[in-house]
Amino acid sequence: MSRSHYSGEVNESVIGQRVALKGWVQKRRDLGGLIFVDVRDRSGIVQVVFNPKISERAAEIGEKLRNEFVVSIEGLVVARSDGQVNTSMKTGKVEVQVDHAAIINAAKNPPFAIEDNTDVSEDLRLKYRYLDLRRPAMFETFKMRSDITKSVRNFLDREGFLEVETPILTKSTPEGARDYLVPSRVHEGEFYALPQSPQLFKQMLMVSGFDKYYQIARCFRDEDLRADRQPEFTQIDMELSFQTMEDIIQLNERLMVQMMKDVKGLSIEPKFQRMSYKEAMDRFGSDKPDVRFGLELINVSDLVKDSAFKVFSGAVENGGQVKLINVKGVAANYSRKDIDALGEFAAVYGAKGLAWLKVEEEGVKGPIAKFFEGEASAALITRAEAEAGDLLLFVADSASVVADALGALRLKFGKELGLIDNSVYKFLWITDWPLFEYDDKAGRYFAAHHPFTMPFEEDLDKLETDPASVRAQAYDLVLNGYELGGGSSRIYRRDIQEKMFSVLGFSDEEAKEQFGFLMEAFEYGTPPHGGIAFGLDRLVMLLSGSTNLRDTIAFPKTASASDLLTNAPSPVSQAQLEELSLSAKEQNNQKVSD
Amino acid sequence: MSRSHYSGEVNESVIGQRVALKGWVQKRRDLGGLIFVDVRDRSGIVQVVFNPKISERAAEIGEKLRNEFVVSIEGLVVARSDGQVNTSMKTGKVEVQVDHAAIINAAKNPPFAIEDNTDVSEDLRLKYRYLDLRRPAMFETFKMRSDITKSVRNFLDREGFLEVETPILTKSTPEGARDYLVPSRVHEGEFYALPQSPQLFKQMLMVSGFDKYYQIARCFRDEDLRADRQPEFTQIDMELSFQTMEDIIQLNERLMVQMMKDVKGLSIEPKFQRMSYKEAMDRFGSDKPDVRFGLELINVSDLVKDSAFKVFSGAVENGGQVKLINVKGVAANYSRKDIDALGEFAAVYGAKGLAWLKVEEEGVKGPIAKFFEGEASAALITRAEAEAGDLLLFVADSASVVADALGALRLKFGKELGLIDNSVYKFLWITDWPLFEYDDKAGRYFAAHHPFTMPFEEDLDKLETDPASVRAQAYDLVLNGYELGGGSSRIYRRDIQEKMFSVLGFSDEEAKEQFGFLMEAFEYGTPPHGGIAFGLDRLVMLLSGSTNLRDTIAFPKTASASDLLTNAPSPVSQAQLEELSLSAKEQNNQKVSD
Repeated sequence: MSRSHYSGEVNESVIGQRVALKGWVQKRRDLGGLIFVDVRDRSGIVQVVFNPKISERAAEIGEKLRNEFVVSIEGLVVARSDGQVNTSMKTGKVEVQVDHAAIINAAKNPPFAIEDNTDVSEDLRLKYRYLDLRRPAMFETFKMRSDITKSVRNFLDREGFLEVETPILTKSTPEGARDYLVPSRVHEGEFYALPQSPQLFKQMLMVSGFDKYYQIARCFRDEDLRADRQPEFTQIDMELSFQTMEDIIQLNERLMVQMMKDVKGLSIEPKFQRMSYKEAMDRFGSDKPDVRFGLELINVSDLVKDSAFKVFSGAVENGGQVKLINVKGVAANYSRKDIDALGEFAAVYGAKGLAWLKVEEEGVKGPIAKFFEGEASAALITRAEAEAGDLLLFVADSASVVADALGALRLKFGKELGLIDNSVYKFLWITDWPLFEYDDKAGRYFAAHHPFTMPFEEDLDKLETDPASVRAQAYDLVLNGYELGGGSSRIYRRDIQEKMFSVLGFSDEEAKEQFGFLMEAFEYGTPPHGGIAFGLDRLVMLLSGSTNLRDTIAFPKTASASDLLTNAPSPVSQAQLEELSLSAKEQNNQKVSD
Repeated sequence: MSRSHYSGEVNESVIGQRVALKGWVQKRRDLGGLIFVDVRDRSGIVQVVFNPKISERAAEIGEKLRNEFVVSIEGLVVARSDGQVNTSMKTGKVEVQVDHAAIINAAKNPPFAIEDNTDVSEDLRLKYRYLDLRRPAMFETFKMRSDITKSVRNFLDREGFLEVETPILTKSTPEGARDYLVPSRVHEGEFYALPQSPQLFKQMLMVSGFDKYYQIARCFRDEDLRADRQPEFTQIDMELSFQTMEDIIQLNERLMVQMMKDVKGLSIEPKFQRMSYKEAMDRFGSDKPDVRFGLELINVSDLVKDSAFKVFSGAVENGGQVKLINVKGVAANYSRKDIDALGEFAAVYGAKGLAWLKVEEEGVKGPIAKFFEGEASAALITRAEAEAGDLLLFVADSASVVADALGALRLKFGKELGLIDNSVYKFLWITDWPLFEYDDKAGRYFAAHHPFTMPFEEDLDKLETDPASVRAQAYDLVLNGYELGGGSSRIYRRDIQEKMFSVLGFSDEEAKEQFGFLMEAFEYGTPPHGGIAFGLDRLVMLLSGSTNLRDTIAFPKTASASDLLTNAPSPVSQAQLEELSLSAKEQNNQKVSD
């Protein structure tokens, strides 16, 4: 008999009905001649009871069951007696009296228990990913992932977007992260690259007049992995023609509002907060600030520029800043040793020191208090809106070090002091980005977003003369302190694109070799266009409440980019290499199987 | 002003309204002081008129317009005068009196006209793909592609399927087509492979209890390309647990019925025809027969086995067959020379000769007629249901050559004689496939579908003793003579999977090295499962009426797997190769740029 119900559907509403279940043995216990078995499938768990008085044959099967056996169960749904009701289970008011049962497949004892709160090592979970994915919380995450993409697709479809697939085997473009390469067998010595994003292809679709494109697109970066990076990741990718930055921002606000409603059942504010890059850095020391709490950075450079405390006045003199955060009411809880530890934490972000003051009724206390007496103290207290019991933490350094160090401290206190309401989702647009970042090591400018981002029209004349001051028509969407995605208006004129490549240090030949087709396309009637891309994996992570990106990907790679389940990457045969006209370097030949 | 309407929406219903359009100049002509311009966007074309009496400034812009300029147009929609109505255009009853106009971007004269019936070379179309995609028919195809996936997703979603993404960077499994390889930078000398299908991962998801999975999945094969093959292609991929082959067949019939309704507005028969592999080969000489027309293969081996015509009797004696097709009423149209040409056509499929007879009132005529007089002739005519004017074409050879040659001739006549109703969509299931195919050259069996296909339960005991006779729980879906996709029940027991690999010539070590994780997974409680995958590109091709698979892919590769737009594959830098510990072979080093 085929399945009549999923386990999770067997509740009070089907009492008195016969059901047929297919699932896995979650737990089995013998109690007074009866065998109780929890049968699990993707929907949940229901208790079934083998009673020899009801079916001796079924009870014999029940005897043989072990954890993770695959079973077929038929029987009558009955109400549990009052004392047996389990209110923590959605099927806890009923049980199934088994009259027919069969073992569909046996199972060895699994290397870890199939339950949500497992403390087994992640490597073991990845090696036995098919067991790890049996944990109900994992299924819920992938259900949510599927729900998110469904909601996004439905919204974009209603808005007239067309889903178009772009190639995975494409061209290597060294500007950006490191490419994964794919050797060509037909064209000896040549390579495809896996795309870091569908950027150029979606721009081509705009040149083609497709007008509104989207794709849930797989992208690839061969970078050293961090906890929140994977070699392959998925983007919600879109591009539109003839739309202003404002149009695109508002469209995506509506998208996110709808998605949060569909997936989380939450009504969020339809208009998101906006903040310039500069303001975000000034107030939060971050270009992706978590605005669910305050504890903002307070600039006191003007107050201390003439201070006798040379660390402060010197920093200002050298073009840097002095800023503080006011950690309210905690002064009494932080010993000198505790504050030293905070200093070590700040040092990771480049701060050479962490100055501090404790605020008391009579003024400020601490090693540097002597520099801030009378009016100087009062001015600081006023600026910091401080009161007795507050702890003021200062960093004096270049603007970027001050931002990094105090921004990180702010987040640390936000989490540790419970300042963050985790039930809240705060979306935030960051706008007015610089177009370029100067890299001291490379001695040249890099594109802050990517080389296809349109400058502000009014900054166009500074593109070559003062690149650092040129602003980009770019915008990032931040959620709870994470960058969800970034968008921009794109360059659609050849002359601007050429200047852009020139600032980035491309020779004319290099620009033509790598992006000639793009610049040529601009000459055949290219509409103004722009778009945005969101990291789907990160979105799932934030909405599922996970902190591990790998939990959002069905078959993820480890930090060394390995798949522990299938054992990829792996050696290939000499014959395969020869077909590709490749040889692995000598020192590795012994690793290549024959 | 932002766009108020797409061009294609400017019809009688908006007469008297002002509209704002954004689009491309399709055509411009001067007529008696007026300038008429067709403005195109993805929705269609509308005629706008520049009249200096309405706006001199706009008319000056109108003067400057050339084909493919990007323009912004504003004006009043008016009815065309009676003589000017163009009934072949959906906007042919109106025109827009331009009062504001702007050139958004200029355009060079394109290398080919943007219109549907272009005879320009495909290479040029691919190099300027962004212009090629401007042709309305191309946009329609991608709209249909988007509609197909939308319909499929909606259906599967309602059926409780979960969309799950599986990895693109995975493990090379030499059994099957040739893999695309991706060198690992972190693990020197090791490689990922791009998936030929998500087969193993979707099976893992079934082991995980995900129950119903689907994905619109990108797949890759490094094979020599034919007109209907691409290095990357897209599958509608699904897998289900605890469902019989019959359940899965019926589900997919409902899927296709719904999709044909959503996409083509057609109601097709909800129950598809079914045919065993053997019957398809016998009757049509093909495992993917086009059943929109007859002209079936007729077996006359029994009638000719004692014939004095040694070609026939000899073939039967050697274990082969003699079959014919009866091409009705065409005998008079085919000269000896014509029939010789048919023989050459048949020779391509391995036929050593093509015997023939023309049927006349008094019997059969032709070079071999002397062998078929009296009763022998009458028996043939009866079996072939022939009448005067028919042409009988015979092939005598091994069963497979007979099938190939007569099957191809059948299709050729079907097309050339107009026997096929192109408005009809005939879906057909092919069932009862052999599990293995023997490859004479390799001297071993290969899996006819793939090594994970479940044999018929009742054939299990012949798996090792008589592999050739074992039938597979596999089924293909055929549409109008094209294989749309194939599915099967999968092996879910380790012992059967081991036997399978053993028949395929794997040593225990090889099987374990490549598929150890699969066989281990089978021991941890694997449900019975099965699934199917359809070729999306081919489906789009058939429903859009195209004959070129490349027209269904936005950025396809050529027959030598090149992307003529971006120029992929291409050389990469020595630095990139070194990071991967690879060297291209010596003879190619000069092709690698530095």
